[in-house]
Amino acid sequence: MLISKIPRKIYFVLLIASVFVAGCASNKASTDAGQLVLRQQGSFAVGGTLVTNPGTFDPIKDGAYNPVNPSTAGQTLHVDHAYVFYQVPERPRKLPLVFWHGHGQFTKTWETTPDGREGFQTIFLRRRFPVYLIDQPRRGHGGKSPEPVNIAPTADDQLWFGIFRLGVWPDFYPGVQFSKDPEALNQFFRQTAPNIGPYNPEVNTNAVSELFNKIGAGILLTHSQSGGLGWRTALKNSRIKAIISYEPGGDFVFPEGEAPDSIVLGGRVIKPATVPLPEFWQLTKIPIAIYYGDNIPDSPSTNPGQEQWRVFLAVARKWRDVVNKHGGDVTLVHLPEIGIHGNTHFPFSDLNNVQIADLLSKFLKEKGLD
Amino acid sequence: MLISKIPRKIYFVLLIASVFVAGCASNKASTDAGQLVLRQQGSFAVGGTLVTNPGTFDPIKDGAYNPVNPSTAGQTLHVDHAYVFYQVPERPRKLPLVFWHGHGQFTKTWETTPDGREGFQTIFLRRRFPVYLIDQPRRGHGGKSPEPVNIAPTADDQLWFGIFRLGVWPDFYPGVQFSKDPEALNQFFRQTAPNIGPYNPEVNTNAVSELFNKIGAGILLTHSQSGGLGWRTALKNSRIKAIISYEPGGDFVFPEGEAPDSIVLGGRVIKPATVPLPEFWQLTKIPIAIYYGDNIPDSPSTNPGQEQWRVFLAVARKWRDVVNKHGGDVTLVHLPEIGIHGNTHFPFSDLNNVQIADLLSKFLKEKGLD
Repeated sequence: MLISKIPRKIYFVLLIASVFVAGCASNKASTDAGQLVLRQQGSFAVGGTLVTNPGTFDPIKDGAYNPVNPSTAGQTLHVDHAYVFYQVPERPRKLPLVFWHGHGQFTKTWETTPDGREGFQTIFLRRRFPVYLIDQPRRGHGGKSPEPVNIAPTADDQLWFGIFRLGVWPDFYPGVQFSKDPEALNQFFRQTAPNIGPYNPEVNTNAVSELFNKIGAGILLTHSQSGGLGWRTALKNSRIKAIISYEPGGDFVFPEGEAPDSIVLGGRVIKPATVPLPEFWQLTKIPIAIYYGDNIPDSPSTNPGQEQWRVFLAVARKWRDVVNKHGGDVTLVHLPEIGIHGNTHFPFSDLNNVQIADLLSKFLKEKGLD
Repeated sequence: MLISKIPRKIYFVLLIASVFVAGCASNKASTDAGQLVLRQQGSFAVGGTLVTNPGTFDPIKDGAYNPVNPSTAGQTLHVDHAYVFYQVPERPRKLPLVFWHGHGQFTKTWETTPDGREGFQTIFLRRRFPVYLIDQPRRGHGGKSPEPVNIAPTADDQLWFGIFRLGVWPDFYPGVQFSKDPEALNQFFRQTAPNIGPYNPEVNTNAVSELFNKIGAGILLTHSQSGGLGWRTALKNSRIKAIISYEPGGDFVFPEGEAPDSIVLGGRVIKPATVPLPEFWQLTKIPIAIYYGDNIPDSPSTNPGQEQWRVFLAVARKWRDVVNKHGGDVTLVHLPEIGIHGNTHFPFSDLNNVQIADLLSKFLKEKGLD
């Protein structure tokens, strides 16, 4: 899409230049065993709320652990915070990268890849960015909710194999950027965790907004479900100076009156969210890059694992056009269109993730964000 | 206890020497902003099992996400693995430290302290130990269980304030090694996460034993509930070359016929676990250090937050004597007895955690484990 607007000659110059840049950076990043020099690392909880029960707590009468019939009078519970693990390299660049996982995932998204190579956490540390990895509230290390939840294990590995576009079970897509070592798939299936409490976008965006209040200006990276949450968090907090969104879901926010007609996905009708134009403007003030991987068809597919992303990519294109019409700066890259093939729903941990990281480095440099 | 067997003169020499060692190491470790040079870091899932549903998965018919009425025929679910985050420093020492959290906790136990200083993860990285931090199965990042669970939020902050020996709510113990900054308590209360599935010691020890199969010889550090799990894991896996146990619960494993009479705790009668003597011998073959903090009384207390630890410490002393009688090498340190006061149930993240780390460094050096 983007490329189509660039004259052919310039396109090839850009292509060669980007291959060259990619090559250099790849060599650097592939030195897995090289020194990684940090100044600081740590973790903290951020945001959240407090439940306070009426009554009085008696430390003598009520002070013994009683899992069956606990006394809760006068006690509190700290809930709905996000958990954050951060690392600051030596000679850090100015803006940190804040990494936010998608549906069913946690910080692991950005850590070691399923086949055991370095993920974006370490790749971008080596490129001297401070990194902040989030577990959103009610997930993993952010696991305290004020609302009860019943977690019923659901055998669904094969469903996600399809939706995450590794292939059509039991076959991988030809040329897919995912290791055929069975251990890679084992690791991939084990990198998820359930919602510990009802899913609540407001709770999630509040906690991540608090994170930016704490750390100041930074660049937000989102994936899939957190794509939609990311747009909303940027509307809340101008400390988000750019958004990089990998394969965002269809949950874009349009200005009132400018949303596309309702989106139809497998019989479901999805009504795009809207906000008043003055509120929307915040999204026109920051550079935004959106990346989608391979095996997303152009026309409707009977394969739900592909169809969902065809619809979301179409909405993403409309959203880009609306934001840019209002003076925004959205770059949407459908990777196959720039000659990068085989990416799944997780480009940043695919076999070619150094190449995907190089694209991001290039974007950040172009926008003066590094 | 230990000290009482050492002649007075030697004791003072040891004390002065240890203060000297502590001083040197403290200066080094307190340079928070100093360079931290890593060779490698990453994360992985280890151990676990696989649930396989009968039937056939149809990627076209069953390939759309349906949270309300999911089709699970022919699908699998990867469950009951532990999650591990590891870091290897430059010029690593030979044996890695493997950190295992306690009840309701996760890796955070060993990360940044509630008041924002470096925890054992980073302190011991700076002392050139490779570190492995565990989330046990069904907790945090190890959040997949084959069994359903209903998580009902319980307001219990004040209960744990007492059991973790910060004080008698709402008062801190005089001289307690915990920051009075309200934000420290806020962070402390937010560092927990629920069981995502029924608690199962066998599942936990299997996964951690698999971790040692993967990484080879190492030193296991446990805390509270994982104390009991640690003894059992060492019985399963001789790659555990030492155990450091902070405030283990009363769940010690005795040789058959040598367990103390049942333990009485607040009306509950606890029968100590036993194993045949030949199996028990594994625990006599490795150095073991056990540390308990302050505010544990000598005689029965009406304060449940103290009474539990009085009972557990008494059992720990009996266990030490039994293991050592069989030729073992258990060192039990009740910190106030060597002049270290004010420690809570979390000595490794208390205000004096560098001093606590120095004790550990000294122990590892004495045992040739560094």
